[in-house]
Amino acid sequence: MSFTKKHILDVESLTPEEITAILDTAENMKEISERPIKKVPTLRGKTIVLFFYEPSTRTRLSFDIAAKRLSADSISFSASTSSMVKGETLFDTAKNLEAMKPDVIVMRHSSAGAPHMLSKIVNTSVINAGDGMHAHPTQSLLDMMTVREGKGRLDNLKISIIGDIAHSRVARSNIHGFTKMGSEVVVAGPPTMIPSGIEKLGACVTFDVDDAISGADVIMMLRIQKERQESFLFPTEREYARVFGLSKKRLSNAKAEVLIMHPGPVNRGVEISPEVADGPYSIILDQVTNGVAVRMALFLLLAGGVRNDDH
Amino acid sequence: MSFTKKHILDVESLTPEEITAILDTAENMKEISERPIKKVPTLRGKTIVLFFYEPSTRTRLSFDIAAKRLSADSISFSASTSSMVKGETLFDTAKNLEAMKPDVIVMRHSSAGAPHMLSKIVNTSVINAGDGMHAHPTQSLLDMMTVREGKGRLDNLKISIIGDIAHSRVARSNIHGFTKMGSEVVVAGPPTMIPSGIEKLGACVTFDVDDAISGADVIMMLRIQKERQESFLFPTEREYARVFGLSKKRLSNAKAEVLIMHPGPVNRGVEISPEVADGPYSIILDQVTNGVAVRMALFLLLAGGVRNDDH
Amino acid sequence: MSFTKKHILDVESLTPEEITAILDTAENMKEISERPIKKVPTLRGKTIVLFFYEPSTRTRLSFDIAAKRLSADSISFSASTSSMVKGETLFDTAKNLEAMKPDVIVMRHSSAGAPHMLSKIVNTSVINAGDGMHAHPTQSLLDMMTVREGKGRLDNLKISIIGDIAHSRVARSNIHGFTKMGSEVVVAGPPTMIPSGIEKLGACVTFDVDDAISGADVIMMLRIQKERQESFLFPTEREYARVFGLSKKRLSNAKAEVLIMHPGPVNRGVEISPEVADGPYSIILDQVTNGVAVRMALFLLLAGGVRNDDH
Repeated sequence: MSFTKKHILDVESLTPEEITAILDTAENMKEISERPIKKVPTLRGKTIVLFFYEPSTRTRLSFDIAAKRLSADSISFSASTSSMVKGETLFDTAKNLEAMKPDVIVMRHSSAGAPHMLSKIVNTSVINAGDGMHAHPTQSLLDMMTVREGKGRLDNLKISIIGDIAHSRVARSNIHGFTKMGSEVVVAGPPTMIPSGIEKLGACVTFDVDDAISGADVIMMLRIQKERQESFLFPTEREYARVFGLSKKRLSNAKAEVLIMHPGPVNRGVEISPEVADGPYSIILDQVTNGVAVRMALFLLLAGGVRNDDH
Repeated sequence: MSFTKKHILDVESLTPEEITAILDTAENMKEISERPIKKVPTLRGKTIVLFFYEPSTRTRLSFDIAAKRLSADSISFSASTSSMVKGETLFDTAKNLEAMKPDVIVMRHSSAGAPHMLSKIVNTSVINAGDGMHAHPTQSLLDMMTVREGKGRLDNLKISIIGDIAHSRVARSNIHGFTKMGSEVVVAGPPTMIPSGIEKLGACVTFDVDDAISGADVIMMLRIQKERQESFLFPTEREYARVFGLSKKRLSNAKAEVLIMHPGPVNRGVEISPEVADGPYSIILDQVTNGVAVRMALFLLLAGGVRNDDH
Repeated sequence: MSFTKKHILDVESLTPEEITAILDTAENMKEISERPIKKVPTLRGKTIVLFFYEPSTRTRLSFDIAAKRLSADSISFSASTSSMVKGETLFDTAKNLEAMKPDVIVMRHSSAGAPHMLSKIVNTSVINAGDGMHAHPTQSLLDMMTVREGKGRLDNLKISIIGDIAHSRVARSNIHGFTKMGSEVVVAGPPTMIPSGIEKLGACVTFDVDDAISGADVIMMLRIQKERQESFLFPTEREYARVFGLSKKRLSNAKAEVLIMHPGPVNRGVEISPEVADGPYSIILDQVTNGVAVRMALFLLLAGGVRNDDH
């Protein structure tokens, strides 16, 4: 095993070889969840702390199940009940956590860069489970795993990401990931939701959803958040669905073997119609299944080996 | 093992033979909790999700301990923190949970029928931990276990359930359970709390508590909820205690070997007096102990075997 | 093993020999957390309930990790979600918990004496994780462990505790602990925060912080809580820092090999300056590490042996 990364902070800092190593490991891990006894003793005696400042049941559940299937002890630590409320700095909370000798800290935070900062404070592996609008590397890795499963490769594909690109750490991480692996990423959505300069990350931009759909191998729809409507970033949900949503009719212009993805939770009838979400091209639930596998792979790669523990 | 049920949704759909099989298994399970090492490896590598939409520490704790004593991994998922808050449908939340490959989902929900719906969505075993005012089958099974322990049988007994029958899923499940096993169930309480048509479930109705107590082998007192008083279903707590509560004096008209039950939490001095709750006929705490045993039995029967997993 | 205590309710009721036995055991436990596989099977099949009425992530986390490193099952039960909300008495909640056959109940409560009461209700070992302003014995034990580690002994030391003595269960438990082991305890702080009669516990009192620092082997700074300012117990944070805070300058009057402690969470720049908190004499993070070890030791001593289980 040549994997030498200590932290998983973003997709940007992973090499294509490292991404491939993670996905290969995740494929092996996936098989464990198919067994009658879905557990291996590999990480017995390892302590994994799930340190979530933003509420997220779904992602936390996925990490928690991944830890338990490897026999690690996983412990949740959430902001609302934590001493952060009492005015403790992130530095002190981090140092305190470290003093209890965890092997991996999984962090979700509303501020971009918080997991990076954490990784500089503690001598423990850190996994970024989503930081502000910056990065969500485990989501991108599970998306790449799911596309590789469906297409047999990660290069020479057209990946179209449609929706609120500006506020999406999933979009940001996937632009890095898929372009790094040799595919083209197209982003589409209302002009108010496409940040200027996004091309610099390597994405092509279009404001015409049909243009993005045409010729795409993979269409990834992003969740629309109601609070954006209150900020006048889009008119009404019905209008959004009509102009930017993925309907069955609109999908008829896509390639025959197109794959439909969504990071969830889905707003049925807004960014995606129920027939498409539940239709034959949808691999939305495979994403969820692969999420557990990717997180198992990361725990194994970060905590499973014997490592010289300097940064 | 001839137990072939995939879900435990209500007592109504269990045969007397299935109930007996569950209670026999629970008796074996109970012995495990008496050992110095209260754990068997039977469900190692099984994932149990505790999916609670209504807060309930006590019932969740009982399921959690039951899972751990069988070496299963149990993971809590509560509504307030879940993506349901973000407007996800029950269908999508259920499909997402299923995609993480749990073996059993335990669901509590404020809407009657939610666990039934869940069982139709997912290809995973579902246990109803209480749905609205409909059913609470694990409570009824632990009640039957406790009565069988105390009386040596479940047939030819007079079981009197006293209190707010209308709002009680415990009463509903127990009417089904005890009549199915060959006993007579009498329900008593204020007329405002006895739903019309309850006789159709097989219960006899009386508005006279002393009538219900006289000749009863088992008296089950139900919890009075303060919010019912605000709805004018009963006058004051003091008045309720006087007319419908189980006092020591009133108990003197009961059979010598009567058993006193309560699903908890108890309102001391309202539906039951402290002397009776703590007295020699009370088996209230045996109910709690047997709750763990019954839940272990259900986990074992649903997740312990090798099964052809079609509905 | 001659340890025969059933509960750990306060330091007052421990003999010096018992304290030494706990600290010796904790030293062995500490080594487990340094291993690549930080887990021993000693308490497999034991059930530990963490019963917290007051929010406390840090202390709960430490107990939780301690339980898991000994392979015990630990289950959290918090007040806000519990049936206590429904008006159940502590007596009934305790009896219900006991009926589920836990081996140890760890209790934190805002009322002084609640864990003592619990220990009289249930036939299960109880550990006090902090009760009101009364006692916090596990904190005091980890403090003693950390001082013994640093100084090689617990007798003939001058231990100065500085800050809000009146509201501190940590101060109270440490006055008992360190004087019992043969050291001198000096308490210092604003007159409004020194309770009258504290000398009766065995502490010397001074209102002059420099006096407390001079000649001290150990300086323990206590957390200032903002809500005290609102009660006019001290003027402003800046003023508090100037008069009572531990700055690098003030520390220059201390002994060369002085140890600096703080129970956390730290208010940097209020009761302690960042240079001191992070400086060479600070053993604040050792306290956190030793907290896990002490709690492992207590679980082992209370639940690990074969015991005649009468009070």
